[in-house]
Amino acid sequence: MALHHEAPIRVGLLGAGTVGSQTARLLVEQKDELSQRIGRDIELGGVACLDPDEVDFPWIDRSLLTSDTMAVATNADIVVELIGGLEPARTFVLAAIESGASVVTANKALLAKHGPEIYQAAADKGVDIYFEAAVGGAIPIVRPLRESLVGDKVTSMLGIVNGTTNYILDEMTTKGLDFDVALRDAQARGYAEADPTGDIEGHDAANKAAIMATLGFHTNVGIDDVTVEGITRITADDIAAAAAEHKVVKLLAVVENGEAGVSARVYPALIDENHPLASVHGSFNAVFVKAEAADDLMFYGRGAGGAPTASAVVGDVVTVARHIAQGCTGPVIPMYNDLPKAPIEASKAAFAVRFLIHDKPGVLAAIAAEFAKRGVSINGVNQDLKPTLHDPGYSGELQQLRIVTHLTDEATLRDTVKAVCELDFVTGEPSILRVLD
Amino acid sequence: MALHHEAPIRVGLLGAGTVGSQTARLLVEQKDELSQRIGRDIELGGVACLDPDEVDFPWIDRSLLTSDTMAVATNADIVVELIGGLEPARTFVLAAIESGASVVTANKALLAKHGPEIYQAAADKGVDIYFEAAVGGAIPIVRPLRESLVGDKVTSMLGIVNGTTNYILDEMTTKGLDFDVALRDAQARGYAEADPTGDIEGHDAANKAAIMATLGFHTNVGIDDVTVEGITRITADDIAAAAAEHKVVKLLAVVENGEAGVSARVYPALIDENHPLASVHGSFNAVFVKAEAADDLMFYGRGAGGAPTASAVVGDVVTVARHIAQGCTGPVIPMYNDLPKAPIEASKAAFAVRFLIHDKPGVLAAIAAEFAKRGVSINGVNQDLKPTLHDPGYSGELQQLRIVTHLTDEATLRDTVKAVCELDFVTGEPSILRVLD
Repeated sequence: MALHHEAPIRVGLLGAGTVGSQTARLLVEQKDELSQRIGRDIELGGVACLDPDEVDFPWIDRSLLTSDTMAVATNADIVVELIGGLEPARTFVLAAIESGASVVTANKALLAKHGPEIYQAAADKGVDIYFEAAVGGAIPIVRPLRESLVGDKVTSMLGIVNGTTNYILDEMTTKGLDFDVALRDAQARGYAEADPTGDIEGHDAANKAAIMATLGFHTNVGIDDVTVEGITRITADDIAAAAAEHKVVKLLAVVENGEAGVSARVYPALIDENHPLASVHGSFNAVFVKAEAADDLMFYGRGAGGAPTASAVVGDVVTVARHIAQGCTGPVIPMYNDLPKAPIEASKAAFAVRFLIHDKPGVLAAIAAEFAKRGVSINGVNQDLKPTLHDPGYSGELQQLRIVTHLTDEATLRDTVKAVCELDFVTGEPSILRVLD
Repeated sequence: MALHHEAPIRVGLLGAGTVGSQTARLLVEQKDELSQRIGRDIELGGVACLDPDEVDFPWIDRSLLTSDTMAVATNADIVVELIGGLEPARTFVLAAIESGASVVTANKALLAKHGPEIYQAAADKGVDIYFEAAVGGAIPIVRPLRESLVGDKVTSMLGIVNGTTNYILDEMTTKGLDFDVALRDAQARGYAEADPTGDIEGHDAANKAAIMATLGFHTNVGIDDVTVEGITRITADDIAAAAAEHKVVKLLAVVENGEAGVSARVYPALIDENHPLASVHGSFNAVFVKAEAADDLMFYGRGAGGAPTASAVVGDVVTVARHIAQGCTGPVIPMYNDLPKAPIEASKAAFAVRFLIHDKPGVLAAIAAEFAKRGVSINGVNQDLKPTLHDPGYSGELQQLRIVTHLTDEATLRDTVKAVCELDFVTGEPSILRVLD
């Protein structure tokens, strides 16, 4: 059905995997309704994939399939990049922009690494770059940051932005599992990949943290600015000890715009069980935003998956198509602030530290003395914890000692922990978790 | 600082109360940054209020104040309507549009009643009408529905969209208070107005339900299409009985696009304590959205207050100003679907019904027989509840009987309750609450 007399807006799709195939489905099945929203016809003009013979979806016309990705990237009004990774995705995205196409992408790694180059190329060419699906999957978070909150000042964001680690921590919490067991279980159920490194070491969340900070603070924060800790050292004991204090362990992306500058970090932390993020379970994602005028906001939804991610991608495609139909563009990615990066040493937090010890008289006094010597104030001590098989260096004679501090700066805390670990009755690797208010 | 050579975009503000004064503050204090985002200078060109002598904010230049609202409404590029209510707000909004101005408003009552007239006037004139602050205060929900989810199909929304009633129900829950006590307490603390009718009877939430349904389902749903029940009949016993079943009572705006048509309703209901909406406390608002591709989404934040609402208003002003600077407009409010309204009789739900009875042998059998006769299946019965002073018709001899049903259609349930109430040992008004999955 041709609604309009002008040529239809052509969408070129790079990638026909889980998200690509669902994006194609929504574009094809809802073509008429979307065209009506846009004010001009829209059509899927080409789908690039590695092996067209392997792709078989009833809604994708076989004649649209090609392995010539560059041809699709440079022959469309809107290019949807769903290849992922840095190269060749970067080359295709820049070629698409250079050809005059607007770009919609879900590629967080690409934007966290090459964002400024891509945003600048789009601004120079006068085309749109939209990427709602790059953070939080289906959750509208990029658009609110780019548009709804522009009259406000975002001061911090806390995000659960990786569903795999959230699922694993949830399983550890509800079933008392240790990390390794929960990971294998998540792999068996398809919630974790065969090589889970990018998720469990926090790299995926770090890409999203970089994008969140860039959008929220209007300054460039790249993946190399993000400090990252994963969840591989968390044990069932850490979680049980947190639960006893009415707290839960979550892997958080934390971005802040404070007096010392901008920071972007990923780490596992204890949050109060009444915090809105505490009830974000399984593979769901959520981003908690603090802004000066709006105060607390939270955005919650599916952080991954074919159809949810495609929903966000197609929302972007329609917005960009409306801009093309009207001859305008959306807001450029604002990076007019050149804010300093806060040094990690300057950050203050409360910490929960767990040591493995050979218990004997005087142990607690000696450890407490190391904390006192450096002015680190102790909020609570717990020596009842049973060591588990998954503690490095475990043997039956060891005990665990857990110390929760008051607010302290990170450098001093790390010095203290290092000194404690040098005491002769302390062994193995300590576990260090931040405790958020 | 003049960033650009063109004339600045003039904003006319109608209303200088809590939200208006904060909107003026953000526009004045962040003028340079906003102008940079817009690509053209923006300035506050006039502020209309009832008595200019009474308005005294350091950031509002006194020369901008006037009581001539029509002059401000028809001499601006963007008119921000914060007067509230139906008239004269409607007249000023239509005059602004007629004069060629785009309009930003937080007026839910106006849109729920006169939305189609206003949306059509804006579309005819080629200007924008934006209203993020009309639903959920600071929470970006209108923009996601208008833009992010356009490639998806929203099937239902559940919202806690009235902070006053949420605060009252929370106080009843945490402190075991009855409704009247909690209301007086909320009034004393400024969370409820002296005349709380609009909040506690559900009318405020109903306006928002109408807007949510219109945006979500692309069909016109007006305030007269919304069925409304308030919270005035909820007792501490209802809440205690819910808590015993791990449920909480919330006043919900519920809009659905089902087989029988579109429905928009406001009612107090029991939801599971693990539902994301259950942990929305105090004056916070949240909207839970179900869409076919995106699946579950939730948006959470401050539903009212000067600064939070102003944050949403200014976000809209910047978007509209960018459109003016670029010579384009945002998406029109889509009402191309002409969906039937589902008759209330067709809706199915589980119900928790509480009767006041004179207890004697055979009472339960007689009541159960009325349910059985009409095919209403009973899920649970509880006769332990103590009547409270706030039950109508209370006397020391009465007992309460609470019955929870399985899914049943509403007409049959109401027939059954009516029949039970005609039994001679049943007295007073029954309490009927829906139970959501």
